[in-house]
Amino acid sequence: MAIITIVGAGMMGSAMSFPARDNHHEVRLAGTPLDREIIGAASANGGHLTMKRQLPDGVRYYQVEELKSALNGCDLVICGVSSFGVEWFADAVLPLLPPVPVLAVTKGLLNNPDGSLLTYPHYFKSRRPDRSFNAIGGPCTSYELADRHQTMVYFCGENPAELLRIKELLATGYYHITASTDVLGVEGCAAMKNAFAVAVSIAIGLAEKLEGENAYMYNPQAALFGQSLREMSRVVRLLGGDPALAAGIPGAGDLFVTIFGGRTRKLGYLLGKGLRYSEAKEELKGITLESVVIITRVANALRVQARENRADLRDFALLLHLDDVINRDAPVAIPWEELR
Amino acid sequence: MAIITIVGAGMMGSAMSFPARDNHHEVRLAGTPLDREIIGAASANGGHLTMKRQLPDGVRYYQVEELKSALNGCDLVICGVSSFGVEWFADAVLPLLPPVPVLAVTKGLLNNPDGSLLTYPHYFKSRRPDRSFNAIGGPCTSYELADRHQTMVYFCGENPAELLRIKELLATGYYHITASTDVLGVEGCAAMKNAFAVAVSIAIGLAEKLEGENAYMYNPQAALFGQSLREMSRVVRLLGGDPALAAGIPGAGDLFVTIFGGRTRKLGYLLGKGLRYSEAKEELKGITLESVVIITRVANALRVQARENRADLRDFALLLHLDDVINRDAPVAIPWEELR
Repeated sequence: MAIITIVGAGMMGSAMSFPARDNHHEVRLAGTPLDREIIGAASANGGHLTMKRQLPDGVRYYQVEELKSALNGCDLVICGVSSFGVEWFADAVLPLLPPVPVLAVTKGLLNNPDGSLLTYPHYFKSRRPDRSFNAIGGPCTSYELADRHQTMVYFCGENPAELLRIKELLATGYYHITASTDVLGVEGCAAMKNAFAVAVSIAIGLAEKLEGENAYMYNPQAALFGQSLREMSRVVRLLGGDPALAAGIPGAGDLFVTIFGGRTRKLGYLLGKGLRYSEAKEELKGITLESVVIITRVANALRVQARENRADLRDFALLLHLDDVINRDAPVAIPWEELR
Repeated sequence: MAIITIVGAGMMGSAMSFPARDNHHEVRLAGTPLDREIIGAASANGGHLTMKRQLPDGVRYYQVEELKSALNGCDLVICGVSSFGVEWFADAVLPLLPPVPVLAVTKGLLNNPDGSLLTYPHYFKSRRPDRSFNAIGGPCTSYELADRHQTMVYFCGENPAELLRIKELLATGYYHITASTDVLGVEGCAAMKNAFAVAVSIAIGLAEKLEGENAYMYNPQAALFGQSLREMSRVVRLLGGDPALAAGIPGAGDLFVTIFGGRTRKLGYLLGKGLRYSEAKEELKGITLESVVIITRVANALRVQARENRADLRDFALLLHLDDVINRDAPVAIPWEELR
């Protein structure tokens, strides 16, 4: 039995309490400043406000002021914040970290000042070089982890022995973990699937626009799914990761699960139906999605790399069209003939 | 304008008349012995009996007895038969071939006598070494090609200049063609997607069995989708093709489109719901599916290769489970812990 502290009580962070508790660990779920209500409600009745699931029995809840006690004596810290909470995590949590590994559910990439891309484990490491940062990739929705559906994920990190220890803490009969030292590959896929889920979802909206609901129209979705993985594998290669991960659990698997629900699907769907991004954003109540951020950052990075002759922009025609749609409010017009 | 003769008036062969006619070619659609009714009806009123679509104006129809006139003076032969028609095509059509290239829609692989795998273009070449055989891979359902949905496919063949000529004949504003000389890669993906579509569809049936219709259960599907591409890329590598095609249009794209409809999906669905293969086959009216044949052939080939230390069977745990389900009537029990 170990003590596992999850920092961030959003859906994905909180869902990690299921495999952790099923393995009989002490689980401490600590909220960010944005999680006050979630932690309050869960302390009172064990229910998670946004996930709408009962959390496992025995989880201990901590408000953000109690972060220090939540971290005290733990064996593993799970960083449960989304990419929008990364700065908070770096500022508020990293200084308090005990000498134990961190495992992050956060998906995304940052831009370095020179325009190149940076993974969150590498960013955290730059802020706290004396600690070890690992991350999770692969297709896993929080709802389904909470419902103990069969799930395959990747844990990535630089230290194989440590990865295996973390894997042992969290592997269950439904949560199947592959350990990988290819942080750039796994994190590249995890980030890019959000970008490309917009592309595939555009085809879903487009089908409905052209042929009505329940249209039988999968060729375009399939084409964009395949093209997405092609471009994803090229981004991963540029990052320095193994592009073969795109044809596997972290790439294809995660892209697959992402197009079946959630706000990224909704965004792509609305764009496919013919809305400009400015209009779709209004329907999504002005919320900026992770998918939008990653499209923007990667398109920027590609342009920088292209100027230095390290990337050929023609290899990323789909992604760059998404960037035009998002950042220049261009109408959707899939550049079929330019996809290669 | 060219003369294009399609031999085989099943749905996929017939659907090729759409891009061909849209490019103003003379199109001759010739039936196999099994297509007598289809050709008869289409000659009478232009409708396709099984595809339930009007074929394009101007297509000329030929019964099997008129094959010679159908082939006379043509510039391209499209082999439109399914894998079950390959022997007929080899025996009845290859001897009559004019000196023009062949483009096959047929998907599948054969076993060589030594247990290794053989693509259809290579098989045809062995039967008619003085002709050139090309093939189509990628996600394209016949219905959607007939409805002129945006579609991306690969044309593969050994002669790049010839491939480009064929591409020019058939490329349209909705039918987007990538030319590739990697016949083993494209054909390997095209064949394997039928096998792995069973695996992903099992997860669809399993979800319904466990949680009822409209269950939100995508983690297992996504895991099996990702694992399928992993194993597909390994099969392609063993064949001698480029495994990267699995993360693209011919692999991921084609697998994606295949799980949204058709009898292979139905088979996987029934297996996932708990039926043994013997029972599912009864529900499918005893029809042997291409997916079943390819699972059997590739599993056999892998066992031969493993005996010769050229393959590690642990890399194909999902495919070999499908083989147990199909050929030993084993119950579905996804070997989650063995997938790697």
